[in-house]
Amino acid sequence: VIDSQGKSKTGGDGATSSNPPVITLLTDFGVADYFVGAMKGAVLSINPKAILVDITHDIPPQDIEAGAFTLLASYLSFPPNTIYLAVVDPGVGSSRKPLIAKTSKGVFVGPDNGLFSYVLDREREFELFNITNDEYFRKPVSNTFHGRDIFAPIAAELSCGLQVEKLGPKVNEFVALPRLEPSRGNQEIKGRILHIDRFGNCITNITREYLSRLERLVIRGRTINTFKEFFAQPDHDGEEFFAIWGSAGFLEIAATNSSAAKLLGAARGDEVTVVDGSF
Amino acid sequence: VIDSQGKSKTGGDGATSSNPPVITLLTDFGVADYFVGAMKGAVLSINPKAILVDITHDIPPQDIEAGAFTLLASYLSFPPNTIYLAVVDPGVGSSRKPLIAKTSKGVFVGPDNGLFSYVLDREREFELFNITNDEYFRKPVSNTFHGRDIFAPIAAELSCGLQVEKLGPKVNEFVALPRLEPSRGNQEIKGRILHIDRFGNCITNITREYLSRLERLVIRGRTINTFKEFFAQPDHDGEEFFAIWGSAGFLEIAATNSSAAKLLGAARGDEVTVVDGSF
Amino acid sequence: VIDSQGKSKTGGDGATSSNPPVITLLTDFGVADYFVGAMKGAVLSINPKAILVDITHDIPPQDIEAGAFTLLASYLSFPPNTIYLAVVDPGVGSSRKPLIAKTSKGVFVGPDNGLFSYVLDREREFELFNITNDEYFRKPVSNTFHGRDIFAPIAAELSCGLQVEKLGPKVNEFVALPRLEPSRGNQEIKGRILHIDRFGNCITNITREYLSRLERLVIRGRTINTFKEFFAQPDHDGEEFFAIWGSAGFLEIAATNSSAAKLLGAARGDEVTVVDGSF
Repeated sequence: VIDSQGKSKTGGDGATSSNPPVITLLTDFGVADYFVGAMKGAVLSINPKAILVDITHDIPPQDIEAGAFTLLASYLSFPPNTIYLAVVDPGVGSSRKPLIAKTSKGVFVGPDNGLFSYVLDREREFELFNITNDEYFRKPVSNTFHGRDIFAPIAAELSCGLQVEKLGPKVNEFVALPRLEPSRGNQEIKGRILHIDRFGNCITNITREYLSRLERLVIRGRTINTFKEFFAQPDHDGEEFFAIWGSAGFLEIAATNSSAAKLLGAARGDEVTVVDGSF
Repeated sequence: VIDSQGKSKTGGDGATSSNPPVITLLTDFGVADYFVGAMKGAVLSINPKAILVDITHDIPPQDIEAGAFTLLASYLSFPPNTIYLAVVDPGVGSSRKPLIAKTSKGVFVGPDNGLFSYVLDREREFELFNITNDEYFRKPVSNTFHGRDIFAPIAAELSCGLQVEKLGPKVNEFVALPRLEPSRGNQEIKGRILHIDRFGNCITNITREYLSRLERLVIRGRTINTFKEFFAQPDHDGEEFFAIWGSAGFLEIAATNSSAAKLLGAARGDEVTVVDGSF
Repeated sequence: VIDSQGKSKTGGDGATSSNPPVITLLTDFGVADYFVGAMKGAVLSINPKAILVDITHDIPPQDIEAGAFTLLASYLSFPPNTIYLAVVDPGVGSSRKPLIAKTSKGVFVGPDNGLFSYVLDREREFELFNITNDEYFRKPVSNTFHGRDIFAPIAAELSCGLQVEKLGPKVNEFVALPRLEPSRGNQEIKGRILHIDRFGNCITNITREYLSRLERLVIRGRTINTFKEFFAQPDHDGEEFFAIWGSAGFLEIAATNSSAAKLLGAARGDEVTVVDGSF
């Protein structure tokens, strides 16, 4: 599983059969403290050849949903043998379980608190393991920083080829957030706001699979009829809000040169109703 | 072109003939969202051996001039075979062209909107290509995130040795910002503020080539006569402002323990007149 | 010294005898400007195989103590052959000396202004060298950016195997901050606040070596009796403040869902008295 499949069409660098493994990092630690450096050091102390890539460390503190969304929006861009080390962990030191989720698109390592929930909703086929074998932990294990002492070393060992089965028992359950998918009615789709990005765009959970041609979208009592192909597209009718397919594959609600979330007073979890015009 | 020339004087690591290619990233995406991670994943999916280096992702949103300055100030520090992936792209999805600029100091990949203008003003010798061949794009290509779907894959393919000629036609024109160089008068140089850094230092476009010994500098009606060799140099005459050669090679206007830009009310583009005292 | 000892228990990647060297970066440059990119370029121009890892670039401007603490809190996580490139350098261009500190846990490169003081207090065995040989500097050397022109190239050359003795004379003295260790009284320990993290936790200089079981802690006239094992531990007695062993190995003072530093009005350097209850 851990051998690289990444290959260039031009073959310029793909000559060697095994490529170094990518380990991505996603946390809510910020980058001002020593936390991220310490996690990377813990990885490199075990596998100096690991390729470390930051997804982000600016998940709002303890915001598991934001972490789950950001993983979902980025994981398909990476090579399929990538190891996703993710630590948004308000329950560190408590009885919450350390989890490994193995999928055909990569292996996810972090706390079992919903962080991998959206990815697993999409992947559907996966194996789950609780990490119980402390043989590979960094000693002494602190009660406050499992990112450095448990999750980073485990990700590093997996990147060296350690069998996930050696780390603990296979399990069937994981802590789940509300399901990723919207619900389909007669002619309308009921979805929700999954995430609000830093520009104030409201990212819904509605994908192209559920919507061919937008007739109208209703959010917080407001109806939006305008659809744009790209952000810089001229706005002929002077509408304040528009819908657009975002780069994470979801329908987004945006405002021209402004924060749609602020103007709408919208928040994560708000219901969004969409009517498809292709019927 | 893509083979590395980087060599250590001590020869400790330079034994192998080909070094991995450096791909730098410069964007206005910030680091809180999934955008930068997705771009890096797109590169590593094609070339797992690429060395990714962030220049910055904190270019103010859509500020092409700030991006152009930051590229200019950093590109000479990197190995000459570096690939500069730069995405400050307010026109994404519109008719603006994807551009490759090939110079003896590296290859620049990004939107044709002025982002490479200052580097090309300095390099003078270069070849330009419009990217029209979509064979190497990440599919499906979104309308909102060409950084991930076009520019990152192209940079990755170039790092694998793909010939730039395969990507599209050679062109002669590019979107240009106002010329980098100041204008030379009889005894004075007329320049402008290129950039204001986060400390409020005003970076002009005046280089040592234009100025041997500063007699005086005029900005916004204010005359500055003090010149310092380094920031911590004691200030004998109690002057509020001073000029200093900055690390990007330009004359800068600074204030002692304060923001020169704020005190002067200075902004990018402001005219600066300098009189050389060496005549 | 520079050969890697990093090995995986599973042996997956440790087949080759020499691993690429890690060079960590710690600065107060922020990440919005070209400074960090330029330093990394300067390293990679000399050693394209160096593994660059950011500890942080968000040390508050010119805050040497914060830099010293962050190095102390992270350096034991990295492989023992790591090179620590650290630039918090208010005296750049003045007569302050460029320093190399060689320890069994890595080599430290930066200005001699106290930045390595806490690490050296802990390591106790080390060799110090002043960098005087300009042969390996990036030319021309600016007066304002020794991070790029002196410290980055020196770190890169060391990572290629250059003998530190070639860079300048061995010296015996370095600029020191107040000693890291607390003082031990009859039944009490007198320590101080070393650092306040972004959550407002007050990190003391008291380690387990000095304290077996906390009876009480006094800071700013306030007595704290509550001790927690982990942050999420339920708070039965409704106390506002508690003490906890932090992940850097020091006793920390925290407040439930709040900033202890703000509530206490505490600042770095404040005295902390601790009484051990194990007598």
